[in-house]
Amino acid sequence: MRDPALAPSSDDRQRWHDADQDARPQRLGRLRERMVGEGVDAYFGLGAENARYLTGFELGDGEDKVRGSSGRFLVGADEVIVIADSRYRLQAEEQCRGARIEPFSTGFPQRFRELLAGLRSISGEGAGGVRRVAVEATNLSHAEWQAIVDEAPELELVPSDGWVEGARATKEPSELERIGVACAIADRALEETLADIVVGASERDLALALEWRMRTGGADALAFDVACLAGSRAALPHGSPGERMVQRGEVLLFDFGAQVAGYRSDMTRTLFVGEPTSRDRSVYELVARAQEASLSLLADTLAAGNVPTNREVDAAARDVIEAAGHGDHFGHGTGHGIGLATHERPSVGRAAVEAVLPSPTVFSVEPGVYLDGKTGVRIEDLVAVDVAASEMRRLTGFTRDITVVAA
Amino acid sequence: MRDPALAPSSDDRQRWHDADQDARPQRLGRLRERMVGEGVDAYFGLGAENARYLTGFELGDGEDKVRGSSGRFLVGADEVIVIADSRYRLQAEEQCRGARIEPFSTGFPQRFRELLAGLRSISGEGAGGVRRVAVEATNLSHAEWQAIVDEAPELELVPSDGWVEGARATKEPSELERIGVACAIADRALEETLADIVVGASERDLALALEWRMRTGGADALAFDVACLAGSRAALPHGSPGERMVQRGEVLLFDFGAQVAGYRSDMTRTLFVGEPTSRDRSVYELVARAQEASLSLLADTLAAGNVPTNREVDAAARDVIEAAGHGDHFGHGTGHGIGLATHERPSVGRAAVEAVLPSPTVFSVEPGVYLDGKTGVRIEDLVAVDVAASEMRRLTGFTRDITVVAA
Repeated sequence: MRDPALAPSSDDRQRWHDADQDARPQRLGRLRERMVGEGVDAYFGLGAENARYLTGFELGDGEDKVRGSSGRFLVGADEVIVIADSRYRLQAEEQCRGARIEPFSTGFPQRFRELLAGLRSISGEGAGGVRRVAVEATNLSHAEWQAIVDEAPELELVPSDGWVEGARATKEPSELERIGVACAIADRALEETLADIVVGASERDLALALEWRMRTGGADALAFDVACLAGSRAALPHGSPGERMVQRGEVLLFDFGAQVAGYRSDMTRTLFVGEPTSRDRSVYELVARAQEASLSLLADTLAAGNVPTNREVDAAARDVIEAAGHGDHFGHGTGHGIGLATHERPSVGRAAVEAVLPSPTVFSVEPGVYLDGKTGVRIEDLVAVDVAASEMRRLTGFTRDITVVAA
Repeated sequence: MRDPALAPSSDDRQRWHDADQDARPQRLGRLRERMVGEGVDAYFGLGAENARYLTGFELGDGEDKVRGSSGRFLVGADEVIVIADSRYRLQAEEQCRGARIEPFSTGFPQRFRELLAGLRSISGEGAGGVRRVAVEATNLSHAEWQAIVDEAPELELVPSDGWVEGARATKEPSELERIGVACAIADRALEETLADIVVGASERDLALALEWRMRTGGADALAFDVACLAGSRAALPHGSPGERMVQRGEVLLFDFGAQVAGYRSDMTRTLFVGEPTSRDRSVYELVARAQEASLSLLADTLAAGNVPTNREVDAAARDVIEAAGHGDHFGHGTGHGIGLATHERPSVGRAAVEAVLPSPTVFSVEPGVYLDGKTGVRIEDLVAVDVAASEMRRLTGFTRDITVVAA
């Protein structure tokens, strides 16, 4: 049923698995340095991507809602604890080598307190010395936070934000490789789907056809639900595919990505069903120029031995669109980092805190222009930036030239 | 590409849409009664299912991670506000009839304060009178809660838990109908997939085949990722399908569901690849007896004009498994409510707060026995309980008899 041409081999998977395992002590080391710097005794992690990054525990996107406390983890001076209820215990034992797996049934706050009591504080006071605990406060509900405070008033909970996510923005070689494979699988899936695009096909059917090609063409899963939007619906930058049929003379926008061994791709192409109208063509050319402006800024700055900031990359594209009088029709940021999560650091938008780009890193460059009730165009590529190599590399291979389908 | 046999017609969809729209004033009325009873001026909702239930705003499962603040809503005395950033504005205008759509770009706490200032308090003090605000504290991160407290110290945030979820446990006729359609689509997809099950097929391929049949057979989406687990892997109650191949003499467990116009189904069948071993057969018969015990308890109690509690339903199945010496091999609850969410109220487990079942309601009955490293069996059906009609109805149609495949 699956086409193995781009599918990673079991050797690839083993190599990536080993690379993750080898990298984990360093990843944990960086976190522990931060813990010492912030003066906390232990770290309480909840995000599924952080769990995978630091412990190896794997959760599908759909499992986040049903996993309960499984996959939550604690980091102390010399130990990592992964919590797993009866449904996840065997999986945790298999995936989290080096971690202590602790069972869980009900009453998280009590269990939390118990587990911390057995952890050695990173400040070296021995078991029972844990008092200040960093908590991923963006990943824990207020209700649970309050329940822990009520149960364990002797603990001081310190909201941490981005301690692990910040480190994840910098990619290891095997992470870059997986994102590249995910990009190639998505590229090919779109190539193969072009032939299915006929006048009268529905957005939903085409989204399903593209999804199927990715999932039988090497992807473990989608990075996110495929967006396929025809005509004026392309002005909905995140609409879901519906019964709207493809019509001649309209645009057809696909926004999609694949997932390979935990790592994701993300791309958007806006195709033309039959010859583009002059309005649509000029919007497309504007967006393409805007994207090129960001890519050139990146390439030129890196080649000159400098590192651009996230806001400079955003401004390069935005300036082109604003100069053409369409500033109000480009409501989102120019890009976002990607890796274990579809949206992660660095944020490449005008509202982001300005900072030079991390390196090596991967992010999207995806300007768009949306004319309400009329049409919409977005072009999105992933780029890998490597400051040490003074280079930026486009990971998305599909052409950015005007592409006419159902001609 | 899609098989329309079980797919809802556009008339069905229109009828459900209208039913939801007609029901919303009553749904909001119930919430407002609760608000008055709890002495709060306004309600701040965040859960995607609650947003759909009360405002009509639709979010796919995968969008929860990328939607940001879009779909969050505020309920005052006479108004509902839905927040939508530029990506979601047109969609919100289309779907949330009767609500005021408010744009949003960045800085949620400030925006939250502004919007509340323009809302009329349900206690009737007029715009600006909002001081006590109920907040879905299980759906808001502690980090955001704290940011709101810091920005708007004059507000009193009151954690609310289950005000809407409690109401959602009681199902309207059009909600029951949609769950029934989702069950029928899942039933048929499994029937059709039986022929694909051959020795040597992988869990992953069979999961994909089953998914494809649901999604081309009338489902809008999956209720959750298909679980397909062969042999000893069936002892992982929530494992993901992998490269493990189907082998003769082993069990093959499928846990899956469909989504139709927002409503979900959930079922599990444990099939036998070739003739079952005597061990597997006896585990299966035990689990089937346990399930039957819960179903009989339900039917008999309702027929006698009484209403069982959630814990009585759990105990009926659990007693059978414990009496056979397998109590330790049944680590999860007997069932869970289902509707807009795959897991919702009522909770049917031994750890749930004891309460008589709501009515009409739908929940799963899914005992299981898992022998580590050896085998696992779970049988799961959805049942609809209607106290006024003194009846319970099995919504899952697929046989519960021992089913041998690849014979």
